[in-house]
Amino acid sequence: MKVIHYDEVELEPVDAEGAKGAQIRWLIAQKDGAPTFAMRMFEIEPGGHTPFHQHEWEHEVYCLSGNGALITERGEMAFSADDAIFVEPNLTHTFKNVGKETLKFLCLIPHEKPVIKKALNPFADEEANNC
Amino acid sequence: MKVIHYDEVELEPVDAEGAKGAQIRWLIAQKDGAPTFAMRMFEIEPGGHTPFHQHEWEHEVYCLSGNGALITERGEMAFSADDAIFVEPNLTHTFKNVGKETLKFLCLIPHEKPVIKKALNPFADEEANNC
Repeated sequence: MKVIHYDEVELEPVDAEGAKGAQIRWLIAQKDGAPTFAMRMFEIEPGGHTPFHQHEWEHEVYCLSGNGALITERGEMAFSADDAIFVEPNLTHTFKNVGKETLKFLCLIPHEKPVIKKALNPFADEEANNC
Repeated sequence: MKVIHYDEVELEPVDAEGAKGAQIRWLIAQKDGAPTFAMRMFEIEPGGHTPFHQHEWEHEVYCLSGNGALITERGEMAFSADDAIFVEPNLTHTFKNVGKETLKFLCLIPHEKPVIKKALNPFADEEANNC
């Protein structure tokens, strides 16, 4: 069990090639005992962005503050506070700060490459695990 | 790909036994193509709570607003906006609104019972998947 304010977690630079003005906090990770997925917070400065890249894992994102653009091979979509974003595996994408304040968002990823799971009832998980 | 404001997602009652004044929105779920885990938002009215229960899956939580208490078999911890919370599998727990406004938090869960994964390097995921 862990309860922590985000600003107690170290803010580290994102040093991946193609990133600019992007920092990350690993709020909940494998080192905390999280068995399946990790919760990170990104802080992107105005004009900054994550790499324009693709990978085999998905992103589940929740924007906390600021104004961003999700730019993918399919086009560009604006987002801001209280928007949820799903980026499926293998879609080329970048998150860019298009505003004047720091863009903050949660971005969760699985620990390993996901296996596409088939459910007999696609809503079964919602019924079974609703709290 | 999906970009959606949380209030565009249906707010449904949590009808699990032991829940009181609790509602849920499934922001990102299996029906969206999410392969591994689901993002839900809970809205708990003052005095309300989720069931005091345990299960084999973990919770990764981020509090958006309000004042809550995480009550577990090990004791009680206060939380509020911008706190991240990890509840490991099989820990008996409830989230309770102890404030005067609606308590809102994200709560993410895996679609299936998690398998405890062993990594040779417990930080490997952070190095490999940092954006």
